[in-house]
Amino acid sequence: MNKKWVSSVLTIGSVALSSYYYGAYGERQKLLANGCLESKQQSELLHKHISKPAFPLFATVSAAELAEITEVNLTATPLRISQIMKYGFPSLDNVRSYSDFVLSYDRRNRVPNWVFEHLTPSSVAKNEEVDRAKCDFKADESIHPYFRSQNSDYFRSGFDRGHMAAAGNHRLHQKHCEDTFFLTNMAPQVGQGFNRDAWNRLEMYVRKLTKVYPNVYVCTGPLYLPHREDDGKSYIKYQVIGTNNVAVPTHFYKVIVAESTDGQLEMEAYIMPNQVISDDTPLQIFQVPPESIERAAGLLFFDKVNKTHLVKINGKKV
Amino acid sequence: MNKKWVSSVLTIGSVALSSYYYGAYGERQKLLANGCLESKQQSELLHKHISKPAFPLFATVSAAELAEITEVNLTATPLRISQIMKYGFPSLDNVRSYSDFVLSYDRRNRVPNWVFEHLTPSSVAKNEEVDRAKCDFKADESIHPYFRSQNSDYFRSGFDRGHMAAAGNHRLHQKHCEDTFFLTNMAPQVGQGFNRDAWNRLEMYVRKLTKVYPNVYVCTGPLYLPHREDDGKSYIKYQVIGTNNVAVPTHFYKVIVAESTDGQLEMEAYIMPNQVISDDTPLQIFQVPPESIERAAGLLFFDKVNKTHLVKINGKKV
Repeated sequence: MNKKWVSSVLTIGSVALSSYYYGAYGERQKLLANGCLESKQQSELLHKHISKPAFPLFATVSAAELAEITEVNLTATPLRISQIMKYGFPSLDNVRSYSDFVLSYDRRNRVPNWVFEHLTPSSVAKNEEVDRAKCDFKADESIHPYFRSQNSDYFRSGFDRGHMAAAGNHRLHQKHCEDTFFLTNMAPQVGQGFNRDAWNRLEMYVRKLTKVYPNVYVCTGPLYLPHREDDGKSYIKYQVIGTNNVAVPTHFYKVIVAESTDGQLEMEAYIMPNQVISDDTPLQIFQVPPESIERAAGLLFFDKVNKTHLVKINGKKV
Repeated sequence: MNKKWVSSVLTIGSVALSSYYYGAYGERQKLLANGCLESKQQSELLHKHISKPAFPLFATVSAAELAEITEVNLTATPLRISQIMKYGFPSLDNVRSYSDFVLSYDRRNRVPNWVFEHLTPSSVAKNEEVDRAKCDFKADESIHPYFRSQNSDYFRSGFDRGHMAAAGNHRLHQKHCEDTFFLTNMAPQVGQGFNRDAWNRLEMYVRKLTKVYPNVYVCTGPLYLPHREDDGKSYIKYQVIGTNNVAVPTHFYKVIVAESTDGQLEMEAYIMPNQVISDDTPLQIFQVPPESIERAAGLLFFDKVNKTHLVKINGKKV
């Protein structure tokens, strides 16, 4: 896979991506059925799986185990995309794939609609070869200039360029970390007290889930929530910054699915206001029913999750 | 084409629609190449075209002439969709096709992103058999309940259910008119002084263009424009109504392409604030560069227009 190919993937966008997704899935199924996986390692993995009666051979293959054993991919391969997006696309609007995450870009607000990541113990593990200090925030040239956010939009705005896919979640390779610095992956966040504090605590919490669960899927994005004013009416109000009018979301969300070795799923959903949050505020008070985020964002999360495998939502049995 | 098929089209949504679009176009090209069009009328039309040396036989076929001679379609056929969308989709997000117009639905704001129509002298002509008083505003069941706007949202809100595809543009058949009453085609509009006045004048102006141009393509939608406040910062603020938080856009736009018999194109673009506008305000003062709507809406309009055929923008030669 060369750079030209990647650039082509970026351009083709959402339609092509979903085709890839289904294509990759179909290919995977075919390989499984024929027992003709590419590498010796993968073939061994397949036989290991066949010997496990509980493994759902004819369902989607567990993504993380493959990620562990295959080489680190520096481009967004169809296989890696199908791993990240295993449980469905929240929407298909202006989808962009990067080396280790996938997002939908909101061309009106110049921030993402959603960003999807698949974390494993190895993808979040400390890696001396990866240095986020060497990464530069950069505009994504694959976005039409009319809709492209720029570093200048954030400059002296008073807001941080807040990562949606956190840099610390992508430590397998420098390129993975670098890709998280595309401005398509950013939204303006309050810095002190939020991005560098409460929001960071939430990101660390998600990473820690990989100590218990081999696969953690997380979808992150902005919200623009209404509030009632003195006239009794509800309004949505948010600041926009820079010459490109980049939206400053009122809130941010994370919807997380943690997958255990036996395929059981636990879901958690959080909404945090984009404002200073006291350090002693427990993360739990930001938990909300996943449905409330879906309604506010206009998105459907994890719609491919088999509901019989979902055992907990926000820590409560379902 | 039966109802089940239509319902299936609605569900498949944007990806399927774009496939249909290209499929229909390809099919058309094939039929033209083979000279094996379906009906005797279409075959005659083809020969008429072949006998005209200036007709671009291997480019897209002029949509309106076909519309004039084929039967009135009561469902959204791929052919009709390809006519309406001849000059490109502004985006592919949650596309829905109705019997005589196509739209993209904004699931977050519960109003359309854009609504595309193709007007001809016959589609806007007075037709005694079509009565808009018999049409009922109705929710679109093809939209997920989380994102579906309802009549109850507008009830006692103080806002009209404002048509984006105007009922008066779809008079070939009662069904065409009825379809414009789906709430997916509505956005909250100030009634007196706007929807029933200035906005209506703009709609009538667009219809009148068909007296001069055999084909008029019009894209209509909402905008949420920023304003500067006393603190020197820019904000986007808009009301939301009802339990589904239906957005009240701050402005509405229309981008129009009028096509003459010889294929020359003229473009006009308008932005109107969603507020009372004095009756003596000329429509012309609402004209804006099309690009300004594209930037604000996050959409690209008429991107398939051959720029050498575009002779005027907002009445000025290009």
